[in-house]
Amino acid sequence: MDVQIVIPFRLSNPKSRLAGHLSEEERKNLAVCMLKDVLAAVCNYPVTVVMNEPYPELESEIKFAEFVVDSSPLNDAVNTLMKPGTAVVMSDLPLLTEEVVERFLKTEGDVVIAPGRRGGTNMLLARKHFRVSYHYGSFLKHLRIAESMGLKLAIFDSFYASVDVDDYSDLLEVMLHCKGETKKFLQKLGFKVIMEKEPYLTRDL
Amino acid sequence: MDVQIVIPFRLSNPKSRLAGHLSEEERKNLAVCMLKDVLAAVCNYPVTVVMNEPYPELESEIKFAEFVVDSSPLNDAVNTLMKPGTAVVMSDLPLLTEEVVERFLKTEGDVVIAPGRRGGTNMLLARKHFRVSYHYGSFLKHLRIAESMGLKLAIFDSFYASVDVDDYSDLLEVMLHCKGETKKFLQKLGFKVIMEKEPYLTRDL
Repeated sequence: MDVQIVIPFRLSNPKSRLAGHLSEEERKNLAVCMLKDVLAAVCNYPVTVVMNEPYPELESEIKFAEFVVDSSPLNDAVNTLMKPGTAVVMSDLPLLTEEVVERFLKTEGDVVIAPGRRGGTNMLLARKHFRVSYHYGSFLKHLRIAESMGLKLAIFDSFYASVDVDDYSDLLEVMLHCKGETKKFLQKLGFKVIMEKEPYLTRDL
Repeated sequence: MDVQIVIPFRLSNPKSRLAGHLSEEERKNLAVCMLKDVLAAVCNYPVTVVMNEPYPELESEIKFAEFVVDSSPLNDAVNTLMKPGTAVVMSDLPLLTEEVVERFLKTEGDVVIAPGRRGGTNMLLARKHFRVSYHYGSFLKHLRIAESMGLKLAIFDSFYASVDVDDYSDLLEVMLHCKGETKKFLQKLGFKVIMEKEPYLTRDL
């Protein structure tokens, strides 16, 4: 079955929980870096980035993806694009690699879910008709939806896919494990890992 | 190559970061439940549990593992048991399953590391001579040790292996993803997952 990748992306006030640590401009650049790392990981497949408003700079910078603007809420915007053989990949997974995506797309099941921390769904592959429902503990919701539809569900076990960037502690995971743009960007902002007792992040300004 | 599993275990004041939420007795029982879940995941291999003091009740309850008492610091106690073909598995990984352990032990490399959150090393397989160094960001330390010894290192990518129970937020991961004793124990203590906005934990007392 051919696979298409759908990546929802929002650039207006992104990653608001990091507002105490990064300016809005920095958070926007962080969001773009993470999107680029995700795009690099899925580059072997047709990709559609669905945005809530147009970002011409982004479109002109990233050539191989298709960009769609849809101002409806996240679930509706994604469900409009869902068809059998769709993998929805969150845009804030900077540890994702081609190898992780390959392993994910090879996992058998009508629906395959890569869980994120705190009950999230970081990647979801639907080989049959399926409608996503993000927010409010989407992992358990997607489990129940698949069950109610009689679909065979598989959980994809990946640390790299589980780390979405949401709060400050997630930046430490980026600094420790990311090989892409996002780590370079944080380094440019002055972040570094200090290894006294537990490793923690600091920032030179 | 034959593999032996080594599990370090400490029952005196375990999981002290949970002291605000669980009594010492509850934390001890939690630690034992997690050890049981880990033991169930590695049950196809010879297992040595290395403890800092004797726990006769545990030894009499868990029959298939060998118990060794060694009061030296963690690294020394583990390194005494290290020989080529040793996998060191932390005792607080309640999401571990037989499948995860199988995939881990099949991963090629002189040294294979399953990272934990916050720079930890949750599982480490050494197929050549290697000395562990836990605490203070062991993931990066083990990377450097392997590099300095010219060993081929592989990172094992697993969400289930990455979740060690350290602070309160980790209990949510147990409630969402654990299939073993640890979840049952938390349920018995009154914990349940509330799904309003982000899922969070609550406890009926």
